[in-house]
Amino acid sequence: MKNILVAQSGGPTSAINATLAGVITCAYTSGRAGKVFGAIGGISGVLDEHFADLSEKIKNAEEMQLLCQTPSAALGSCRLKLTEESQYEKIVEILHRHQIGCLVYIGGNDSMDTVNKLSAYCTRHGIDDICIVGAPKTIDNDLMGTDHCPGFGSAAKYIANTFAELERDCSAYAAKSVTVVEVMGRDSGWLTGASALARQNGQKGPDLIYLCESVFDNEKFLSDIKERLQKQNSVLIAVSEGIKYPDGRYVSEAKGEKALDAFGHTYISGAAKVLENLIQNEIGCKVRSIELNLMQRCAGHLASDVDIQESKMLGIKACQAALNGENGKMAAIVRRNDDPYEVTYEIIPVFLAANKVKTVPDDFIDQSGHDVTEKMIHYLKPLIQGNAPVTYENGIVKHISLY
Amino acid sequence: MKNILVAQSGGPTSAINATLAGVITCAYTSGRAGKVFGAIGGISGVLDEHFADLSEKIKNAEEMQLLCQTPSAALGSCRLKLTEESQYEKIVEILHRHQIGCLVYIGGNDSMDTVNKLSAYCTRHGIDDICIVGAPKTIDNDLMGTDHCPGFGSAAKYIANTFAELERDCSAYAAKSVTVVEVMGRDSGWLTGASALARQNGQKGPDLIYLCESVFDNEKFLSDIKERLQKQNSVLIAVSEGIKYPDGRYVSEAKGEKALDAFGHTYISGAAKVLENLIQNEIGCKVRSIELNLMQRCAGHLASDVDIQESKMLGIKACQAALNGENGKMAAIVRRNDDPYEVTYEIIPVFLAANKVKTVPDDFIDQSGHDVTEKMIHYLKPLIQGNAPVTYENGIVKHISLY
Repeated sequence: MKNILVAQSGGPTSAINATLAGVITCAYTSGRAGKVFGAIGGISGVLDEHFADLSEKIKNAEEMQLLCQTPSAALGSCRLKLTEESQYEKIVEILHRHQIGCLVYIGGNDSMDTVNKLSAYCTRHGIDDICIVGAPKTIDNDLMGTDHCPGFGSAAKYIANTFAELERDCSAYAAKSVTVVEVMGRDSGWLTGASALARQNGQKGPDLIYLCESVFDNEKFLSDIKERLQKQNSVLIAVSEGIKYPDGRYVSEAKGEKALDAFGHTYISGAAKVLENLIQNEIGCKVRSIELNLMQRCAGHLASDVDIQESKMLGIKACQAALNGENGKMAAIVRRNDDPYEVTYEIIPVFLAANKVKTVPDDFIDQSGHDVTEKMIHYLKPLIQGNAPVTYENGIVKHISLY
Repeated sequence: MKNILVAQSGGPTSAINATLAGVITCAYTSGRAGKVFGAIGGISGVLDEHFADLSEKIKNAEEMQLLCQTPSAALGSCRLKLTEESQYEKIVEILHRHQIGCLVYIGGNDSMDTVNKLSAYCTRHGIDDICIVGAPKTIDNDLMGTDHCPGFGSAAKYIANTFAELERDCSAYAAKSVTVVEVMGRDSGWLTGASALARQNGQKGPDLIYLCESVFDNEKFLSDIKERLQKQNSVLIAVSEGIKYPDGRYVSEAKGEKALDAFGHTYISGAAKVLENLIQNEIGCKVRSIELNLMQRCAGHLASDVDIQESKMLGIKACQAALNGENGKMAAIVRRNDDPYEVTYEIIPVFLAANKVKTVPDDFIDQSGHDVTEKMIHYLKPLIQGNAPVTYENGIVKHISLY
């Protein structure tokens, strides 16, 4: 029986370990796999032959549950992009030496590029005893070939609930105030759009939402805010970190030239901070900027149950595909229905996802340019349903460490 | 039967509405109260006679539960400090006109000052048909006269769990990196100290913790980090927003003179951002700053059950005291035992709490200056136990709005 190697790559999410749990579950129960190794630190860990025998780490259902509720890559991650033929050669040599017949790589579009190149190398060189399959993962939800991405639903759930809570906080005072909240997404506004879900249950949520797919205009932004301030005291705004001016500059770069820190170095700040200053200077009311920062991608305590279940299933499907001899493929989600929500899984050629970016479509963005459409809400809503089970001890969520 | 008036003041917390629920519960069940009014917007709402009849808003157990799980002041808040005799006079006139015999004011030390002054005014003028009692509230935990403050446990629980999750996120990469997380607390480091609870369950949590009670020194800070970086890749740091240099300047003010924004205005940033720049310039590794910002005070979805139960009980006790004819008092928590955790409640003179600040005692701070002691952990740990019940609908936590 062939051994299986699994690795994780790219930015952490709350669901990437559920996919790992899926791979392990499939390997343990398939009856067709030998040892299950985890490479520590993504493809770098493969190159370094830094492997952990996962059968020694995940030995029972409780540890499997702990794995599912631990955010971030339990096997560690990397940002290495394979560029040289010699790297492929070395990887194949290492896999052969460890009798590894299946490599499941969990990651985003860069990682799917790695799966694509490595599997193509094997095909090109007639290496047919190694199957390489990708399992998608990214909070950004920007992978092509899959209806949505594992990790996104949990990040969206944290963001939406946090906006619901921030709205309560910001509206407690009678003074006029503006709160600008920056959400991750440099090239796509999926997560920013998810802030609109805070309006479920008749709650107020964000007043204005600016996705990076729309050109950002300072004057329109200020006028949108002023209009709201005439009707209400508190204005809550969601902006993508990647919003850009008409000339293509990121808003976050807008103050790069003039702002220097105490050492004379350029001061780098986020889009929300730049907008905070803009509002302060042009409107003059109380204003605050907030970055949801890393919390939005690692808030495992508020993970979406739908997301965790799907993430696990994609790990199972990717591992099954590799065991079935598929190479250069990726497990993907196909949505069959919105309400009731139904999905199936399929195995697609990984090149459909590698290095591509899926942005928010035009009909998901409201014509006003400061909101999302009902169509986007219908798409998003099923993905944040249910609270994934989480066990606490001593008041703190329990995590597992694999290395 | 006398009517009861309740109001909320100061910064929002996740538990301030549980105290409101306690007041309402006591009033509904006492058999001694007429109508229960809520003043919208704290003492400002009293002066404006902006009242809501709460019996029309909270009519059943489900609405009471929604109130407990809604963060921030459901009745709205204010920052008004009473300064003039004419304001007291007007308030008394309004209370008399609405047959209000009890005023329960939920808030922090400024609010307890209001309770103190207003009740003293009544005493001075022989007004014996109005009883004014305070119920404490502040995430800062800096109120004197009570073992700890309602709202603190929930903020501490969010902070500790967030640090546990951030540690997982930051340690996924092999590159050397430093993450500086700024925690609320301008004058006291209670919340920053709570980050240490992330180390429960054998988890790693923050590496270095700097409270605002200790003088902050850039050189020591850099040397602490360098020492850690020799042994590990990721260094996670908690700092109070109020950390100060030996000369008394806030670290957050350190770059005030030199940093100007695009409009030539001074750029105001937090302590963590200043330290991010310091580390960038002096160590040069990957560095990120994070502000837990408003999320730490309004993350009702992760409220501590102990905190919510105690907050509700303090509302009950404050209302009972007012009904019993006590004036110028505050409901407080007395800790009887750490393990098993036991508290009782008492009614204390409000001047013991008004305008005072309780900082973290010396023996709660480690001699290294970059950590807390086991004694502080023993104090903190009981306060974050249990997850307060929270109901979701459509994937979003349900909130209630009272005005």
